Amino acid sequence: MAQDKKMVEQITSMDVDFAQWYTDICKKADLIDYSSVKGCMIIRPYGYAIWENIQKNLDDRFKALGHENVYMPMFIPESLLNKEKEHVAGFAPEVAWVTHGGSEKLTEKLCVRPTSETLFCEHYANIIRSYRDLPKLYNQWCSVVRWEKTTRPFLRSREFLWQEGHTMHATAEEAIAETVQMLNCYADFHEQDLAMPVVKGVKTPSDKFAGAEDTYALEALMHDGKALQVATSHYFGDGFAKAFDIQYTDKDNKLQYPHQTSWGCTTRMIGGIIMTHGDNNGLVLPPAIAPIQVVIIPVQQHKEGVLEKAEELRARLSAKFRVKVDASDNSPGWKFSEYEMKGVPVRLEIGPRDIENNSCVLVTRHDRNKTFASLDNLEEAVAEQLKAVRDGIYNKALENREKRTFDCKTMEEITAALAANGDGFIRAMWCGDEECEDRIKAETGVGSRCIPLEQESVGEVCACCGKPAKHMVLWAKAY
Amino acid sequence: MAQDKKMVEQITSMDVDFAQWYTDICKKADLIDYSSVKGCMIIRPYGYAIWENIQKNLDDRFKALGHENVYMPMFIPESLLNKEKEHVAGFAPEVAWVTHGGSEKLTEKLCVRPTSETLFCEHYANIIRSYRDLPKLYNQWCSVVRWEKTTRPFLRSREFLWQEGHTMHATAEEAIAETVQMLNCYADFHEQDLAMPVVKGVKTPSDKFAGAEDTYALEALMHDGKALQVATSHYFGDGFAKAFDIQYTDKDNKLQYPHQTSWGCTTRMIGGIIMTHGDNNGLVLPPAIAPIQVVIIPVQQHKEGVLEKAEELRARLSAKFRVKVDASDNSPGWKFSEYEMKGVPVRLEIGPRDIENNSCVLVTRHDRNKTFASLDNLEEAVAEQLKAVRDGIYNKALENREKRTFDCKTMEEITAALAANGDGFIRAMWCGDEECEDRIKAETGVGSRCIPLEQESVGEVCACCGKPAKHMVLWAKAY
Repeated sequence: MAQDKKMVEQITSMDVDFAQWYTDICKKADLIDYSSVKGCMIIRPYGYAIWENIQKNLDDRFKALGHENVYMPMFIPESLLNKEKEHVAGFAPEVAWVTHGGSEKLTEKLCVRPTSETLFCEHYANIIRSYRDLPKLYNQWCSVVRWEKTTRPFLRSREFLWQEGHTMHATAEEAIAETVQMLNCYADFHEQDLAMPVVKGVKTPSDKFAGAEDTYALEALMHDGKALQVATSHYFGDGFAKAFDIQYTDKDNKLQYPHQTSWGCTTRMIGGIIMTHGDNNGLVLPPAIAPIQVVIIPVQQHKEGVLEKAEELRARLSAKFRVKVDASDNSPGWKFSEYEMKGVPVRLEIGPRDIENNSCVLVTRHDRNKTFASLDNLEEAVAEQLKAVRDGIYNKALENREKRTFDCKTMEEITAALAANGDGFIRAMWCGDEECEDRIKAETGVGSRCIPLEQESVGEVCACCGKPAKHMVLWAKAY
Repeated sequence: MAQDKKMVEQITSMDVDFAQWYTDICKKADLIDYSSVKGCMIIRPYGYAIWENIQKNLDDRFKALGHENVYMPMFIPESLLNKEKEHVAGFAPEVAWVTHGGSEKLTEKLCVRPTSETLFCEHYANIIRSYRDLPKLYNQWCSVVRWEKTTRPFLRSREFLWQEGHTMHATAEEAIAETVQMLNCYADFHEQDLAMPVVKGVKTPSDKFAGAEDTYALEALMHDGKALQVATSHYFGDGFAKAFDIQYTDKDNKLQYPHQTSWGCTTRMIGGIIMTHGDNNGLVLPPAIAPIQVVIIPVQQHKEGVLEKAEELRARLSAKFRVKVDASDNSPGWKFSEYEMKGVPVRLEIGPRDIENNSCVLVTRHDRNKTFASLDNLEEAVAEQLKAVRDGIYNKALENREKRTFDCKTMEEITAALAANGDGFIRAMWCGDEECEDRIKAETGVGSRCIPLEQESVGEVCACCGKPAKHMVLWAKAY
C-alpha cells in the first residue's frame, strides 16, 4: 500500500498544473526520455509501441484506398526548396541546414526535410508522362525536422515522426475528392480507434499550409479546453505542378498540369491521446492502439495453481488480444497502480477463489468498473469490456467538449464566456477579413481553428466588425 | 512480340557489363529513381514493398527474441559523438553536419546519425540502475547517413534505411551469446527467406566496427564473384559503458559495467538479392519477400468468362498469397516480360481451354518451368511452385558460390586461381599479422572478408609469409 500511494503521488494533479501533469505522464508512463539535443525526444518502447499500432492501423487504411508507400531522401537542396515561392517562405525560417559532408564544405547547402512536397514534385516530373500514369497515390512514413523555438514532447518537437501522403490527379475534382476522402479517413480513425471526437473543417486563408489552395484539418478539444490540430489534408491545385513543370498528355494528346494533394499526421496524436483521455492516475489508452489491452494480475500468486491459471488465460486470450501477465514479486496494489499509470484498458484479476468459481474479475481503466466474468466465455467478456472503454472514453471526451463549447455573438461575449468557464471552443461568426481574425485573437486570446464543414449559424454578423458574416468559425487557444 | 523483345533488349546483358545490368534492373524493375542529391536514392513503391516485407519478417524475428523497438533522435551533438575515441575516429570523416537551425548558427554542430551507439549509450546511462534493469534489448528502424564518395543504389548510398539493435547485458557471456544469436538470426533469414547462402564469420581486427571488440558478419557471394557483407553483429565489451559511465548495481550491491552489443542490416540486402538471383530477363525475387508472389495473366481475355475466372482465382489465392491480376490491354507476351523483369516468382496463366479443363498453367520465374495444375487444389500447387522457386534459386546461388570458391596455399596460387576463373571466394591460411593481410590485398587484389566460424584447414602456413597459420580466412573483392 505504501508503494501504491507512492505511484499515485508521483504525478502532479491535472487540476493543479496541467502542463506538469502532461510531462509527468510522458515520463512516468515510460513514453519518452529527453536527449541531449533540445527538442529531440527519445521515444521509449512503450511509447513507440503505441506509434507502431497507430502506423499499422493507418497504413492498412491508406493501402485499402489504393495508396503505395515510397521513400524519398531526407535532404532537400536549397535550390529545390526555393522552387515554389510560398512554400519556401513558409518553411525556410525553421529548417536545419547541412553545410558539411565529412570535412568538406558542400557546394550547395541541404536542408533536412521539414516536409517533402518538393522532393515528390521533382520525382513526379520524372515519372508522370501520360494520363495513364495518373493518379499517383503515394505515401511516406519518415521523420521530419522543424527548428521550433519552444518544444514539448509529442506536441511540438524539432524532430517528429509522421506520414505524408502526396497524390497527383488528372483533374481538380479528383484531387479535391482525395483531399476530403483523406480528411474523412483521419476523422474515422480518430473517432473510432482513438476515441477522440474531432471537428472537420477548413483553415482560414491566413492559416493555410504554405503553397496550398485549401487546408482541411481535424481539431480536437483537450481536457484543459485548449485545441489540438491532429491531422491536415491539403489541396494544392496545380501550383506546384507549374513550379516543377509536371505535365501529362491527356486522352486528346494535349499537355495538362495535374492537380495535387498532401495529407499528414504525426506523433503529436500521442500527445492528443494523453490530453484527451488521461486522468490523475495516469494514461488512459484507447484499446485499438494500446500496446497491452489486457493485463493479468495474479492475486495470492504464491498459492497453488494461480500462476499457471494466469499463464493459461494469457495464452488463450493472446489469440485475440494483446495480453501481458505480471507475475513479478511486486504487490497486487503496486501492479494495479503501475498499469493504471500505463493506461492499460482492462485489468484481469485472478486468484484462488476466482479459480474455484471458474471466473475472474475485469476492471476497466477509465472508470474502475468491476465485472465478474465466467472463464467459459472470457473472450466475449473481454471484448465487451474493451468496447466499454472505447465508448466510455469517447463519451467522456465528447461531454467535455460539449461542456466547453460556447456560442458567442460578440467579442465581449467571447471574453465573458472564457472568463466564466475557462478555455474551450468558441463558435462565432466571421466576415472573412483577416483583420477581424487578427483582432479577435489579439483582444480575446482565441485564434481561428477552422471553418467547420458542418456549418451552423450562431448569428448574422461578424463578431468583430458587425458586417454580414460569411462563416461560423471555431476559435480556441491551441497547442 | 515486338514489345516482348523491346522489354528484354532494354537490359544490358550481365555478361557484357554486370554493373550496367545491375543499374538497369534497379531502374527498369521500378525499384529506384535518382534524386537531385548525389547518393540519395528514391525508393519507389515496388522497391519499398520489398523493404516492407523484409522489415516485417525481421521485426517479427526480433520481437520473438524479446527485443523492443524504440526511436532515438537523428542528430548527435559533436561532443557526444566524441565520447568514445575509436568510434569517433571511424565515423567523423563521413558524417553530414548540421550547423544552422533556421537562420541561426548552432552553438554546437550536430551530425546526422551515421549509427546510434552514442545516443543509445546516453539513454542507457539514464535508465539502467540495477541488475533488474538488464538485459535491455532495444532495436530501431530508421535512416542513417554516411557521406560516401562513390555511391550506387542500395549497395552504397549516402542515406540508407536500416535497423540497428543495441543491447545491454549484465555479463560478457550474455552479451557474446546475444551477438552470436543475432548473427544466426540474420543467417537464417538470409538462407531461408532470401534464399541467399551466407558464410558466418568474424572480421579481422583491422576490419572491426569502430569501437567493437569483435565484429561478426555474414558474407555472400554475388553472381559476378564479388563478395557482399549483408549483415553485422558486434560485441562491444564494456568499452562504451565506461566511456559513457553506464553502471548498474549487481545482486551483491556492487557497481558493475554492463556489456553491450549492436547489430544491423540495411537496404543493401536488396542489392544482394538483385546480384544473387537476377538474370538477363530481370529481377528474380525470393517468394518470402516478393511484393507479388503470383501474377495471374488472363489468356484470350476478351473471351467470355476469362477475366471473371482470373478475378475469382485472385480472390481465392489472396487468402494465402500476395496475388495480382494484370487485366490491362497489353499483350500476354508483354505481360510475361514485364513480370519477369519484376521478378515475380510464379506466373499463373488462365485461358478458355484451361477453364474447360478445370486447370491452369504455373510458370516459375527462375527456370521458366511449366506445370499444369488442377483448380481443385490450386493452393497446394502454388505453394509447391513457390517452394520450388525458393529452393531452385538457393541451389543455383550455392552452386555459383561453390564453383567460385578456391582453396589456395600461396599468393601465387591466389593470383593464378583468379586469373583462371575470374572473381570468387579464396580460402587461404593467415598468420594473424595485419601486414600479411595488407600485402595479400595489395598483391592479389582480394581483401580479407572474414574468418569463417566453421574453420577448415587448407594448409599449415600463412599464404603470405609462410609462418604458422592461425586461421583460414575468406578473401574476395567486395562491394
